[in-house]
Amino acid sequence: MDDKIAKIIFQPSGRRGEVSKDITIIEASRKLGADIEALCGEKKVCGKCKVRIEEGYFEKYGVDSKKSHVSEWQEEEEKFINDADREAGFRLGCVAKVHGDLLVFVPEESRAGKQVVSKAARDIHIEHNPAVKLYYVEVEKPSFEEPTGDFERICAELEKQYGLKDLKIDIQTLRQLPGALRKGDWKVTASVWMDQEVIRVQPGQQETSYGLAIDIGTTTVAAYFCSLSTMEVLDTVSMMNPQCKYGEDVMSRITYHMMNEGGLETMSADIIEALNTLIEQAVAGTHPPRKKVKKKKGEEGPDEFIEVPEEGKTYLRLSKEDIEDITIGCNTAMHHILLQLDPEHVGMAPFPPVIHHSLNIRARDLGININPSSYVFVLPNEAGFVGADNVGVLIAEEPYNKEEIELIIDIGTNGELVLGNKDKLISSSCATGPALEGAQLAYGMRAAPGAMERIKIDPETHEVDYKVIGRDAWRSFSEPKDMKAKGICGSGILDLLAELYKAGIVAKSGVFNKKGQKSERFRKNADTGRPEFVLAWAEETSIDKDIVVTQKDVRQIQLAKGALYAGCKLMVQRMGIDKVDKVKIAGAFGTHVDREKALIMGLFPDCEIEKITSVGTAAGDGCRAALLNREKRVEANWVSRNVEYIELTVEPNFQQEFMEAMQLPHMTDEFPHLKDLVPEDILNQ
Amino acid sequence: MDDKIAKIIFQPSGRRGEVSKDITIIEASRKLGADIEALCGEKKVCGKCKVRIEEGYFEKYGVDSKKSHVSEWQEEEEKFINDADREAGFRLGCVAKVHGDLLVFVPEESRAGKQVVSKAARDIHIEHNPAVKLYYVEVEKPSFEEPTGDFERICAELEKQYGLKDLKIDIQTLRQLPGALRKGDWKVTASVWMDQEVIRVQPGQQETSYGLAIDIGTTTVAAYFCSLSTMEVLDTVSMMNPQCKYGEDVMSRITYHMMNEGGLETMSADIIEALNTLIEQAVAGTHPPRKKVKKKKGEEGPDEFIEVPEEGKTYLRLSKEDIEDITIGCNTAMHHILLQLDPEHVGMAPFPPVIHHSLNIRARDLGININPSSYVFVLPNEAGFVGADNVGVLIAEEPYNKEEIELIIDIGTNGELVLGNKDKLISSSCATGPALEGAQLAYGMRAAPGAMERIKIDPETHEVDYKVIGRDAWRSFSEPKDMKAKGICGSGILDLLAELYKAGIVAKSGVFNKKGQKSERFRKNADTGRPEFVLAWAEETSIDKDIVVTQKDVRQIQLAKGALYAGCKLMVQRMGIDKVDKVKIAGAFGTHVDREKALIMGLFPDCEIEKITSVGTAAGDGCRAALLNREKRVEANWVSRNVEYIELTVEPNFQQEFMEAMQLPHMTDEFPHLKDLVPEDILNQ
Repeated sequence: MDDKIAKIIFQPSGRRGEVSKDITIIEASRKLGADIEALCGEKKVCGKCKVRIEEGYFEKYGVDSKKSHVSEWQEEEEKFINDADREAGFRLGCVAKVHGDLLVFVPEESRAGKQVVSKAARDIHIEHNPAVKLYYVEVEKPSFEEPTGDFERICAELEKQYGLKDLKIDIQTLRQLPGALRKGDWKVTASVWMDQEVIRVQPGQQETSYGLAIDIGTTTVAAYFCSLSTMEVLDTVSMMNPQCKYGEDVMSRITYHMMNEGGLETMSADIIEALNTLIEQAVAGTHPPRKKVKKKKGEEGPDEFIEVPEEGKTYLRLSKEDIEDITIGCNTAMHHILLQLDPEHVGMAPFPPVIHHSLNIRARDLGININPSSYVFVLPNEAGFVGADNVGVLIAEEPYNKEEIELIIDIGTNGELVLGNKDKLISSSCATGPALEGAQLAYGMRAAPGAMERIKIDPETHEVDYKVIGRDAWRSFSEPKDMKAKGICGSGILDLLAELYKAGIVAKSGVFNKKGQKSERFRKNADTGRPEFVLAWAEETSIDKDIVVTQKDVRQIQLAKGALYAGCKLMVQRMGIDKVDKVKIAGAFGTHVDREKALIMGLFPDCEIEKITSVGTAAGDGCRAALLNREKRVEANWVSRNVEYIELTVEPNFQQEFMEAMQLPHMTDEFPHLKDLVPEDILNQ
Repeated sequence: MDDKIAKIIFQPSGRRGEVSKDITIIEASRKLGADIEALCGEKKVCGKCKVRIEEGYFEKYGVDSKKSHVSEWQEEEEKFINDADREAGFRLGCVAKVHGDLLVFVPEESRAGKQVVSKAARDIHIEHNPAVKLYYVEVEKPSFEEPTGDFERICAELEKQYGLKDLKIDIQTLRQLPGALRKGDWKVTASVWMDQEVIRVQPGQQETSYGLAIDIGTTTVAAYFCSLSTMEVLDTVSMMNPQCKYGEDVMSRITYHMMNEGGLETMSADIIEALNTLIEQAVAGTHPPRKKVKKKKGEEGPDEFIEVPEEGKTYLRLSKEDIEDITIGCNTAMHHILLQLDPEHVGMAPFPPVIHHSLNIRARDLGININPSSYVFVLPNEAGFVGADNVGVLIAEEPYNKEEIELIIDIGTNGELVLGNKDKLISSSCATGPALEGAQLAYGMRAAPGAMERIKIDPETHEVDYKVIGRDAWRSFSEPKDMKAKGICGSGILDLLAELYKAGIVAKSGVFNKKGQKSERFRKNADTGRPEFVLAWAEETSIDKDIVVTQKDVRQIQLAKGALYAGCKLMVQRMGIDKVDKVKIAGAFGTHVDREKALIMGLFPDCEIEKITSVGTAAGDGCRAALLNREKRVEANWVSRNVEYIELTVEPNFQQEFMEAMQLPHMTDEFPHLKDLVPEDILNQ
């Protein structure tokens, strides 16, 4: 028997095999595929890797039970293991080393793959079960007795150690294989997709793989850069959807395709380029920033200075090839344009999409520059106007697992609505337009430094207080010149209409009140003669102009909120219910949305204020869930075919409801919860 | 009940469904997936589509049994159906039309998919079960009630009518789908790969799909262009392997890769380009040839003449996209170079390939220009020096299903040997070099017009008679100037050494006999002074030079045949048998090989002459079998892992055997069957 080798069995998984002595139990567990939790990365500080050592079990191997088969007890273990547990044989997996044959019991709470809370912007529960997993194998060198091929060699080990059967391999990965095996001295880490196909082979032992969950909105694109191993969100990168230049809403892009030969290919190429830019940004964030230093004598090159990486903290230094999985959610039109599927019919009644089902497309087939054999998972579509992004919201929020009837409103350029519970789910969409995202307003802008994201108007003085992105202090606590306001973004717009209404600056009809204006902020525009209200004076801005809201702006916001409200109301009617139990607001506003303001401006039917929650970028969360847990992909396909889509525009009373919903909420039975939020005289006007 | 629709059940398959009335029974069978044989393409002339109509069976549908549910008897049917069968209800499926509900019994001999004999160069039995099959579906248009996506719509019909479940679709095909559906007025033909993935959608009903079986040899590449529906070989196209410029044998190409940065990619690009050329040639053959005609007045363009297609017979007019499947077999080194897999280790002991298992690679991933979603199936490798081409030979010949012990010799630039029967199969390879294929000889050439393919030498006069490719008449029946000989190809070379030996021109050692030469054809070369033998005088050639065989040529042929013979002998020893029951010769010689000559020159151990057969291009046949029957692909993987590869060069007596095998067979116990073939004095020399 080789005295450098020990036999180990992990229970309850039953994983077993031989390992080199003197490695830690956690390292052994990894080699044998019995993963133990290691939140701290084996720094001996989290205590999550407690295991129970059961020596003396290997009679059949002739074990000498007097000699200890693990390394000695260490001080660091005392913090996490009490005397009783120590007596029972508990050790930390990252501390205890293998000195001989062992039976190791891994308690439930120490097992990797259990329910953990992701460290994302918004915490959602995701079961750890990514589509791409890493498997480390050591294989024998070929010999005259056994001259089997490289691929068959690693397959045999992957089956023996991890039970992976009938594996396929992509041609691009197959090309890496002979080099990786020889560079790694016949020890390699294979990335396996869906336990079906080897999509990458790297020399030696690799611990972590990476992926991106991407939410492609009509206006913005956001990518969540995640570790597929720890589920951590390493970075979030976002940018404008470059297709905006072909039209701000979905319909105008579909029209662009219909009117322009090659328009579809052009728009597709633009979004693919954007995705590649985000991938580069995400990867660049793992490299040390570069600084210019003066060249030393003798160094070549035309310039006096050269760039060198700034060191200091530890950087991952990933390359694009280290991204091994991508999930994408978007509305149906964006989905079709991305994939170059004719979007014409999505824009014409009865709006059939080309496909509902999710797609696994080789990244290289889309021109997306990541690990070349990797797949892009595109979430399924519900209907022509309720797309994969809404499916993302659904698998993040799981209303189909709830008793309470939830109304989920995803506010984007297109509003998407879902209503129901575990018994039934219906969905619909309404054309909100981009006003609520900050577009089409005189001073609208996207959420970026300088954007007014919160707005308050004093009902007594009509004075305005606000906060801009990139500065913590509100206007009332700042020097005017320090504000550097530039415009209003989505969450500011949601505040704005509610505040204007509450203060009596606009009437329930949305028209500026002729009477009762209390400040010089209300004025007629010098050029047009039309009424407007100043939110920030020129001196507070970085654009040297007063930032105002115009009557036309208010109309745009009303159109948007009217479409949403009418949609919600008609769906409630369709479900045959009186009221909803819960309202969840998702969308580009992130976590900033003020639920009171949303209720006051009448985004959705009346609801108890504490039952309204913001679920932020739920579509992105859903993409992330599908990235980190492949079961969510199955769930996505199921839910996409089990939500009943309702086309609201064909409802007989749609126009009527829409017209009425343009008004701001006032004193009818419809809004019992407004009483405490808006002055009575305004509600009764 | 709709009076334009009839219900039909086909027995014994049980396929059932509704069809429009007035279509033929054969059309109905196709719609319902119960294929009936139609060799003549429904021209009513082959009589293969006989079916038995069983009316009055549909009581449950309330059938009026007095009214006939098929169209009237037609004259054309009398030729194929006798009175008794007519009485029993037999009709021709291509004649009888559906007039009402029917039960139709399809007899065994009328079923498509039964054992048929392919019309290829060599007839081999192939079960009809191609990987790519066509399915015709008619789907409902989307409506507000059912606005389901295009893909889900065709999937539902494909499942309902043909039982195809969980279908996937390639992104490129998905892009075709909305257009095809609307162009075909919601009637389309889907090409489905392995009953798993939709790889093409064409408007309307399509009857036939096409494929290529490609045998990539070290020296030549041959492609068999087949109908996947009728199994017919429409055309065979071939060309030199363009990689010959990097070296004539496998080892020199592996060396080229190792010595040249980017050499692998260059060689791969060359063979891919060759495959694309063959694809273009195959497709061009389905178009009418073009002829130049004088332009009519008013026609534009700079030239006086324009090209117009010659009409006359019917052409298929296929495009590259009509090729929907490809299978490829080649030796392991060609396999690796084609796929850009590092071939270095295939050339170094213990010669492990990168992969044994077969591969399905998207054609576009290899740059092969056919239907873009189609796959290329690459046959599996047995070992480093016994490749997918040998697997092709095996699945064509199926020695693993035989009682008799067969020795299969595939003669190419590399000789591949298989020995065994249903109990055990062993394989090996030997470096024959390209001499037997016509390369490396003073006047060697490939099999092309002008090549001497048969040679006879009169033992009395040493006069030479021969036949060239492209001319039926032998030299002895022709005017000298009509022969236009250019050189000697493979099958001529096989004849040559045997004839030289039998006539006493060379001795058993291969050296030209100094004594006993009977004609001026034996001479010393004017320049070199070395002995040579004239096969064709300058006046008989198109090259104005005597075509001769030199002592060096004879040595080359001896080296090649010696390698083969030694290999065979060592394998027979390894199997522990005395003699083989059968010898099969495969290789580029096609069906031309003369078994007597092969025995006389000593290509393989002695065998009864009638037990030696030529199996021609068996490797190509195996590729064709895999193209037309997907089960053969499974068989190929099985056999590739169940043939034991033996490395002959490490056998202790290899050198000894090889040296001895260089000699021509003479009177030892080893060759009892030579007595009737070679004069006794020569055998006893």
